[in-house]
Amino acid sequence: MSVERTLHHFPMDPASRQVRLSLGEKRLPFNEVQVRYWESPPEFLALNPSGLTPVLEEKGPDGRIVLCESRAILDHLEEQNPEPALMGREAAERAEARRLLQWFDRKFDYEVGGYLLHEKLEKRLLKLGAPDLAALRHGREALRGHLVYIEGLLQDRDWLAGRRLSLADFAAAAHLSVIDYFGDVPWRDFPGVKTWYMKLKSRPCFRPLLSDRCPGIAPAGHYDDLDF
Amino acid sequence: MSVERTLHHFPMDPASRQVRLSLGEKRLPFNEVQVRYWESPPEFLALNPSGLTPVLEEKGPDGRIVLCESRAILDHLEEQNPEPALMGREAAERAEARRLLQWFDRKFDYEVGGYLLHEKLEKRLLKLGAPDLAALRHGREALRGHLVYIEGLLQDRDWLAGRRLSLADFAAAAHLSVIDYFGDVPWRDFPGVKTWYMKLKSRPCFRPLLSDRCPGIAPAGHYDDLDF
Repeated sequence: MSVERTLHHFPMDPASRQVRLSLGEKRLPFNEVQVRYWESPPEFLALNPSGLTPVLEEKGPDGRIVLCESRAILDHLEEQNPEPALMGREAAERAEARRLLQWFDRKFDYEVGGYLLHEKLEKRLLKLGAPDLAALRHGREALRGHLVYIEGLLQDRDWLAGRRLSLADFAAAAHLSVIDYFGDVPWRDFPGVKTWYMKLKSRPCFRPLLSDRCPGIAPAGHYDDLDF
Repeated sequence: MSVERTLHHFPMDPASRQVRLSLGEKRLPFNEVQVRYWESPPEFLALNPSGLTPVLEEKGPDGRIVLCESRAILDHLEEQNPEPALMGREAAERAEARRLLQWFDRKFDYEVGGYLLHEKLEKRLLKLGAPDLAALRHGREALRGHLVYIEGLLQDRDWLAGRRLSLADFAAAAHLSVIDYFGDVPWRDFPGVKTWYMKLKSRPCFRPLLSDRCPGIAPAGHYDDLDF
């Protein structure tokens, strides 16, 4: 029954981080290969022709399986390792977790990550020059709108999708944590979100993310501080 | 056991089309509400604060459930109505269907739809002026790259993810069909893709999509022709 896992990922990629959090929470050990996806390494393209991280390889008694794209990996992990359940149990709970998961992977990624991470991270990796200040401002304003929404959700809920920790929390935290590395999250103005993020940060599954370092860019001072 | 369904959708939205195809293939009847999502109607925002179509309301013996975002709806329909299975049966088959589903919703949508549909459809809806010719060229070139990839997959497969029809086919067809409305798919150069699309087009679930009309824009002549 033992499965050997290898995760091909980029530490600052929010989609990769979601998978690392799920593997960690489910206590599934895995080997790591870090991918410089923006250089399109041929051995990585052979695994995933889309060229995007993450990819999870599993070798087990039933053979080898290559899982490409974050959602395919997360859904597979839920099916093969159902405890702890991270996608809710009843239909309404699952619908809410999935709604928010897609919210962060689509809307948040497009409106916030597409600006802040493009300007601060991708431009550096791809040597595209200095960040554009108007784009940064645009991304920071959109981020505030999303934080207002999360703060509202957390007024009546322990976790984003309801009473239980779910992949919606991991998706939100994965996206926010990369932006937090660059010091762009105004935690002070959103006490509910800050408390929620502190709870996540102190979970064992989160620890590896807090020791990630992006070569040449130091993280914000509070990035790995549990009592920030 | 009877469930009353209402789908809030926009006919030319690829994400909405995927849900209509799944509902049709599973022979689940539904009421329709067409949403002018770009006008952010308050009654729709109350259903889905992200403002994005599709949204599926279900009223059944267990109460009312509101499902927001395409993937949440598709996964829910698979769980509640497992036959016919549209996400594969074994783990490897499911992984492949999910990989391609995310390919079309993320990579294809970003590289092709983000140009062609933005220029030809969204700019018109939002009154943003005439299409930009360089952007159209960019989108058409990216589309060719994706068609080359699909043509390759279909050399060894009956359907995109393998031996069985899956949500990967519906995702690809949903995205391509909207682009085909505007006449931008070079079918003649991709005979394998064309045969695959003809098979899909002649399924009963596809028929409603072929009678969609976008106000003020006539479809390409072959759009609803089964032998194009």
